[in-house]
Amino acid sequence: MRPTDPARLGAAAAHHLRLTKPPGALGRLESLGCQLSAIAEQLPPPIPSHPAVAVFAGDHGVLAEGVSPWPQEVTAQMVANFCAGGAAINVLARRIGAHVTVVDVGVATEPATHPSLQARNIRRGTANLAQGAALELHEALGALLVGAEVGRALVAAGADLLVGGEMGIGNTTPSAALIGALTGASARQVTGRGTGIDDATWARKTAVVAAALIRVDPATTMALNAATTAAATGIDQPGAPPRALVLLAEIGGLEIAALTGFYLAGAAARVPVVLDGIISLAAACVAASLCPAVLDYLVAGHRSSEPGAGVALSWLGLEPLIDMGLRLGEGTGAALAVPMVQAAAAVMGEMATFDSAGVQNKAHGQGG
Amino acid sequence: MRPTDPARLGAAAAHHLRLTKPPGALGRLESLGCQLSAIAEQLPPPIPSHPAVAVFAGDHGVLAEGVSPWPQEVTAQMVANFCAGGAAINVLARRIGAHVTVVDVGVATEPATHPSLQARNIRRGTANLAQGAALELHEALGALLVGAEVGRALVAAGADLLVGGEMGIGNTTPSAALIGALTGASARQVTGRGTGIDDATWARKTAVVAAALIRVDPATTMALNAATTAAATGIDQPGAPPRALVLLAEIGGLEIAALTGFYLAGAAARVPVVLDGIISLAAACVAASLCPAVLDYLVAGHRSSEPGAGVALSWLGLEPLIDMGLRLGEGTGAALAVPMVQAAAAVMGEMATFDSAGVQNKAHGQGG
Repeated sequence: MRPTDPARLGAAAAHHLRLTKPPGALGRLESLGCQLSAIAEQLPPPIPSHPAVAVFAGDHGVLAEGVSPWPQEVTAQMVANFCAGGAAINVLARRIGAHVTVVDVGVATEPATHPSLQARNIRRGTANLAQGAALELHEALGALLVGAEVGRALVAAGADLLVGGEMGIGNTTPSAALIGALTGASARQVTGRGTGIDDATWARKTAVVAAALIRVDPATTMALNAATTAAATGIDQPGAPPRALVLLAEIGGLEIAALTGFYLAGAAARVPVVLDGIISLAAACVAASLCPAVLDYLVAGHRSSEPGAGVALSWLGLEPLIDMGLRLGEGTGAALAVPMVQAAAAVMGEMATFDSAGVQNKAHGQGG
Repeated sequence: MRPTDPARLGAAAAHHLRLTKPPGALGRLESLGCQLSAIAEQLPPPIPSHPAVAVFAGDHGVLAEGVSPWPQEVTAQMVANFCAGGAAINVLARRIGAHVTVVDVGVATEPATHPSLQARNIRRGTANLAQGAALELHEALGALLVGAEVGRALVAAGADLLVGGEMGIGNTTPSAALIGALTGASARQVTGRGTGIDDATWARKTAVVAAALIRVDPATTMALNAATTAAATGIDQPGAPPRALVLLAEIGGLEIAALTGFYLAGAAARVPVVLDGIISLAAACVAASLCPAVLDYLVAGHRSSEPGAGVALSWLGLEPLIDMGLRLGEGTGAALAVPMVQAAAAVMGEMATFDSAGVQNKAHGQGG
């Protein structure tokens, strides 16, 4: 994976100044178009007309702490709903002409087979992160590789834009913990209401996240096992796994690991990747920690109402396209933003220039 | 025109609670879907699949005050660009499969004929609002009726969603003045950088808006002619024209009046209307003043970076769908939001319910 070329961003910005509009008048759509041009190494950029959606599902041992009122069975039930085409992500994917690939990477109970379902289960749910490591390091890495394979296969099959989504009852808890551990934000700053929990549940959830942050905090002097050394010191030793990967195992989840790999694969294939809410952003934080060049390929689809999402967006330096108070996950906020990504490319390729349209350009000097 | 039925909003909200997602998890998309259901008087609402775009163009005598660096000729040049399909609104309209109807309602120089152009010129540009009334009352009313006819004709031809746009060099000045006069906000609160003006131009523009607000201020004791009495007193006398209509003539513009009529016609035809930036919002403020029921049919497409747009959105009580720093006008921010309006309807019609999908609903009581 390599970063995009800043010269291509500059050339794209210069092209925007020639289009029949005041400079900068299309706001975020202009910077997005420039990013697409740098990713595609084409000016104007091609319109990403073949988006693909993958939804990764996994369960969470931390549910035993009472962090969500929804039972674990709902993860598997929603996997069946995704396969049947009845969930919100299915509807929004149809709006953009995208197929939804459903991936069981960590569901607690084996789902029924279905043509849209990829059975890639690494482990039937994580361990309770409040009691110890959620995953073994090899399990986190295995789930990451599943996501990477799914992403690579979708691009090989013609996808020119990737949308990743997830399902996992309880998964805002590990996502908040990961964002806290990677950004330095506190448990209170990153822990939200998830599916809409009450005050008592939120207090329990925040306590779980706070304990998880202490467990992996470099400043904590508690006894550490070998696997958490990198997580705690914040320093990647030669031969030791990167801290972000250790955190993914200690306090993460299987679908979060898969999303991390999915994003890395998209960037490696030089395809724009649209991010969703807090779980997606937790995976993006891990991906950016493992490989900062991935950032050049990420587009923040929306600003989730989860507080941890805002923390992650700031830390990643990403400005979301939509702010509609969504907090569903599944990739819904990302899918909803895809028409804007396509529009950003279209204006660069289809708008007339001042010269071609015979429109006077008084923008020079005075800035329009 | 009649308001939508609150009972229909309630029934739509109840339907949303049955869909396979935590209650409220689709945020603004849910309230939008409920609004569409109330407008269409159908549950689920039909997807508005036939959006139509109309761009109204007019010139402004206030340009003589040096409120914009762009020459008046650019209005006519951009009308030609709209007809040729090279402007930003043409690109974004194509993305949503909408035809762009271009309407000369007040351009200073007669544009060349074109199949997409409707020659409905009421007057070749307004008078300088800094010197006196921009329009005669009958001219403002005439332009409003042009917009209403265009809207009615588009709906009659099959449009199920209306997007209004505008072009008029200098038209953020009358728009700011109208928003200030109707909302009570000050010139500094409503006057922005328009196409990107420098500090000196902004100071001149703000002074022009401030003077216009004083001229039509009910508290001002200056000598008033008959036409401005209603504008100044803030009270509509029997037989006297409504204050908002008088303001439209005193400090408005021809394309703003046309947009006002366009929005009223859309609401009268029970079709959702998507609003754009500050000029569009000025027209919406006038329309809502003339007929408050229009509000039930308005969808705020985006939050323009113009400060007056924020003032108008607050006053109208509308929450925009997009916040991408756009400030182009032409209907671009509205067109960009149309896929979200369609998505809001689609989720209500296509998502499975907890019962139909066999997903446990633990949302009862604890709120998900």
